[in-house]
This record gives sequence, C-alpha cells and structure tokens, in this order.
Amino acid sequence: MSSSNADLTRFWSHKVHELSPYVPGEQPKLNNLVKLNTNENPFPPSPKVLAAMEAQLGDTLRLYPDPNATELRQCLAGYAGLSADQVFVGNGSDEVLAHAFQALLQHDQALLFPDISYSFYPVYCGLYGIEKDEVPLAKDLTINVADYQSPNGGVILANPNAPTGELLGLTAIRQLLTANPDRVVVIDEAYIDFGGQSAIELVPAFDNLLVIQTLSKSRSLAGLRVGFAFGQHHLIEALERVKNSFNSYPLSREAQAGAIAAIEDEDYFQHTCQANIAQRDKLALQLQALGFSMTQSYANFLFVTHAHMAAKDIALLLRKRGIIVRHLTSSPRITNYLRISVGSSSECDTLVLALKALL
Amino acid sequence: MSSSNADLTRFWSHKVHELSPYVPGEQPKLNNLVKLNTNENPFPPSPKVLAAMEAQLGDTLRLYPDPNATELRQCLAGYAGLSADQVFVGNGSDEVLAHAFQALLQHDQALLFPDISYSFYPVYCGLYGIEKDEVPLAKDLTINVADYQSPNGGVILANPNAPTGELLGLTAIRQLLTANPDRVVVIDEAYIDFGGQSAIELVPAFDNLLVIQTLSKSRSLAGLRVGFAFGQHHLIEALERVKNSFNSYPLSREAQAGAIAAIEDEDYFQHTCQANIAQRDKLALQLQALGFSMTQSYANFLFVTHAHMAAKDIALLLRKRGIIVRHLTSSPRITNYLRISVGSSSECDTLVLALKALL
Repeated sequence: MSSSNADLTRFWSHKVHELSPYVPGEQPKLNNLVKLNTNENPFPPSPKVLAAMEAQLGDTLRLYPDPNATELRQCLAGYAGLSADQVFVGNGSDEVLAHAFQALLQHDQALLFPDISYSFYPVYCGLYGIEKDEVPLAKDLTINVADYQSPNGGVILANPNAPTGELLGLTAIRQLLTANPDRVVVIDEAYIDFGGQSAIELVPAFDNLLVIQTLSKSRSLAGLRVGFAFGQHHLIEALERVKNSFNSYPLSREAQAGAIAAIEDEDYFQHTCQANIAQRDKLALQLQALGFSMTQSYANFLFVTHAHMAAKDIALLLRKRGIIVRHLTSSPRITNYLRISVGSSSECDTLVLALKALL
Repeated sequence: MSSSNADLTRFWSHKVHELSPYVPGEQPKLNNLVKLNTNENPFPPSPKVLAAMEAQLGDTLRLYPDPNATELRQCLAGYAGLSADQVFVGNGSDEVLAHAFQALLQHDQALLFPDISYSFYPVYCGLYGIEKDEVPLAKDLTINVADYQSPNGGVILANPNAPTGELLGLTAIRQLLTANPDRVVVIDEAYIDFGGQSAIELVPAFDNLLVIQTLSKSRSLAGLRVGFAFGQHHLIEALERVKNSFNSYPLSREAQAGAIAAIEDEDYFQHTCQANIAQRDKLALQLQALGFSMTQSYANFLFVTHAHMAAKDIALLLRKRGIIVRHLTSSPRITNYLRISVGSSSECDTLVLALKALL
C-alpha cells in the first residue's frame, strides 16, 4: 500500500484495521466446471419453492416485507415442535451466527470452539472483540465434549463439524449443556439433515441452548439466503434486539415465501436428503478403493487424504480437469486433506474417473 | 419482567442489555387499508425487474450467489459514472448504513447528525458504542451545514431529510465536505430521486464522501431489500472488510438479478419518479387548501401540521377510516406533525376526502 493510500485509511475505524475477513469458497463464473468446493446440494430446490416465489413476483414487491417474518417463524415452529417466539430468522445462517456472537457469546471470558471447524468463527470473534480459546480436536479429528468444561464465555460447535463431517450424538451435547449451565452453547447444524440427530429436541429442557440451521444445504437454497435459530425465548429475544438495532427487514418477500414452501415440502426434503446420503456413502467406498482414507462424515461432503499423493497436488490436477474441490490450510493438521462436496451422480462419476487417471 | 426471566438475561452480552432497538413503521396484515405510513412507492416495480427475477427461479438457486455481486456493482458503477470498486451493495440500505457506522463513523469523537432525522441513526450509535451529538435543526426544520463544523468523528445527513423532506443542494454539501476533511461525511439519499440532486457527482473530488441509496423507494422494491453506497475505493474497502467479517453472501440471486434490471430500466424509473413528484405537488396543494402547513418536501412524503387539530387526533381519526399515516414522537418539536406518504392518485383522493370530512 502506498503512503498515499495509507493516509486514506485514517477514515477507517480502529476495528476495520484489526479485521481478518472470512474468505468464502471460490464461486467461479466459468461454465462446465464440476463444482465440489462449497457443499451445495446437487438437487434443485423443491418445485413448490419455485412456485411460491413466482407467486410473490408482482406489485407487492413495492411494499416492505413483514419485518418479523411471522408466518415463516410459525412454519419453522411447527416443524421444530416449538412456539414462534422460540424461532429467529436471518439473511443466511452466517447472519444468524453473527448476531448470536454479538448477542450471546460476547462475554468477559473466552469463547470455546474446536481448532478445526467453520473458519468464520474466529472472524466473528475479531469483529466483536471476543477472546477465543480454540480447543484441539482429538487425534482422530473428533470432538471430545469433556474438553469444553473450562471456565468460558460460551461454546460453539458445528455438528456435524466442518470440514470433518464428524457427528456428536445428543448424549454428548446434553453433557456439554449440563457442564456449562451459565453460558450459551450454540450448536451450528448446517449439515445436520444428512444423517445426524438435531439438538432441537433439547431446547425445552435447556435454557442455554441455541440451535442454528440453514436452507442452504439440505433444502438446496444457497442462492436464497435464509438461516434460522431455535432456542428458549430469552435467547431469541437477545437476537431480536440486535437484529432490530441492525436491519429491520433482513428477509425479502421472496425469501420468506420460498422458505415457507421449503419447510412445508417435507416429502421432497426427505427424498433429496436420503439421495444425498446414499450418494455420499457410495462415493466414500469408491474413494476408499482408490486409496483414500477419510473421517466419518455425516455431512454432504467427504474429508479425505491419500497415502501416496499430496492433497495440494490432487486439488491442482483436478482443477486442470475442471473439477474444483476445497483445500483448506487453516491448520497444519489438515493440510493434507481435501474437502469434497457430494455432487450429483454424474459429477461424482466424473470425479472418480479423474482420480483414477491421475493417481 | 419476573425475577425468573431476569435471571435468564444473564446469558445476554452487556451490549444487548444496553440496546434501544429501532421500531419500524407498522406493516399491517389487514387488507383494504390505505397505507401511507412507510413511504412505499405506489407504482409497481418495473415489469423488467419481475421478468429478470422470474428468469432466476430455477435450479441455480441451489448454488450460492456471487458473494461480490460483481455484475450488480458494475451496473451501478455505470449508472453513477464511477468504477465498480467505488460501489458497495448490501441487504437494504439499513444494512449498508449499519456497516458504514461500524466501519467509518466509529471514532473517538462524537458523530454529528440532526436532532430530527432518520431515527435509526441513534440506534446504530447504541449498537456500535458511538458517541452522538444531535445538532438541532433550524427553526424552520431545515439543516444549516455551518452547524456541522465542530470537532467530530463523522457526519451523517439524510438528504432529503426524513421526516421533513427538506433538501440540501450540492453547494451546501460541498461546504460540509470541505469543512470536515479528516472525517467521513455520509449522505443518505434514500429519497434523492424525487427531485433532489445526488451527491454522487462529488465522489471523485472528495475522499471523505460516502453516498448511500436504496431500491426501496424510487425503484418500488421495498420488498426486495437492496441498498448500495458510492465512495472512493478506500471507503468501499472498509465496508467490504466489515461485510466479509459478517456475512459473505448478503444478496440473494433474486436480489442481484432484480436490482440489475431495476437500474437498467431508466425509462420506467424516470416515468414513475416524475409521476410521484406530480402527485406529491398536487397533494400538497390539496392539503394546504384544507388548512395544513408543511415543510418543503423533495421526498415521496409530506410532513404536515394543522392549525386547528392535533396531529395525534388526525392520525387516530384517519386510522378509523382505514388510512394509516405516521405520527412520530421522537422530538417534542414534531409531535404536532404527521408524515404522510404520497400514495397513488386514488389513495390520495381517499385521504383528501377523509380529511375534508373530519376537519
């Protein structure tokens, strides 16, 4: 940066100088790529979602949406077996997470989360000035909840964890909640619908539990931007207070209508989740046959490493063949791993053929 | 709040306890209301916007949107005569404002803004811990830019101002920018297209100017949630750093496609703006004939007071007839005013008839 540019940063707040923003997975504009790098669902959204959104395309777009997303929250409450005042919605689960960090995880003690997890967590800590204590995963890259009992300002876990896909059961989560009665425990369930059991059912019993989910993965709606949280009302109220100090209308009319239709189409949801799970399990066997080993993933991606070829080299060679996977380098323990999204049947076939050719 | 509930607020961050969230104008669910309370445009969105959004309704909604909204930013840059790296986009101008407060207006000195203006400004100050110095409007409810030269951490003005509709010309804004060379001056132009001259043309000359606009008013897209900012790149970069620490994908595929079409349909935009201006000027004369006096509004609303009847009473009586207007009580100086959105021709006729009957 030239000295002239450096002078111009005098306009920045102190905070901006300190930030280390998140870098999302590449969203390439080239066609004909096999895109297995950001865990998008290979199935299209439910036709009922598209119909509901089309029905919104008219004169009413001139009007503000419902700032409280009342109908959507009622719909989600019905889905979760909770009441609408135990539901919060936002512009993608990243926004919901951001509000949760500011509203519920910003305390005088350090926030606990795994050293290998969703790499946006430390970014939020930077944004909100939250001290962090990154707890090492076990040697096999799983989470041991007994490691989360030191004094803390809160705990956040992705379950299944990303990028490993490893799942915690509800017994472990109950143990975590019981061990931290005065701190909020956030369970980030972006990938829970691919074979895990949601912690939503623990909400009535635990006043310190916030569960966050998204439409981006299991509902095939990454392009719509809808996320939500479940928790007892006092936690939801904290999120609402931040939201109403930030943006009154985070969800467009289109987003609210599409989200309702997505939740209501349970059959399509179950069908596509099962198909993704079957495809994941098939791909896992194919990759194992090629000499890959991997964590046990309950998500819509596999986290793999190869005995004879460096992950970085595999990623580069796949890229030359028009296949993009994610090579994360946030921790030295995972630099020889690749996170590969479970694509469509034909995308997975293309991947396996390419790997056979280059290994 | 019961003592049991009070205990539950132990989970809240200190910040949440301190917040005084914004209260948006009512979004009633009843049909057949004449809704003149939140300054929505009576004209529908451009048909080209609806067509562009419909074209997005398909399989690609399963994919993340472009996190950088490259095409939309290029489109806005062309509209503004700037480059794409001088454009920022967000989920409604409220989100853009929030990021601007955090990124550019959070300094050790007090932020200056009018004591009567958009009532979200003090809320953002609360959210980001920014000291504020609310500068009184002149007796005639106009802004005198000479009042904004004391040491400060930044200046933000709505132009036209809300709820008065009063406009500052570019000479005054240039004076303000020159008087505050080391602080960012934000001009919030939510209503600029109804007869004002935008400060966008000053961006190349002033490294401390950020101009914020929205699709919600003059583009008839309050339901879509798109706002944007123009400024030299170092200011945009600060906003990007905060955005990328908060939410990588604030704008859905639908929002990006609809916004591009809205900006591109210049003819429709010009036509509907002119029609709104003509309707505003007609309504102003009709209300003056009924004994109302008012500020000189360059927005899509009128700010009126009546010599013989209290604003509060007028609002209540209109409400009984199914007409909603906004009675703001944020300052004692304006409690006898009503802010009335300029509706369609028939909505304005209904309003005038109702007022004739009750005055």
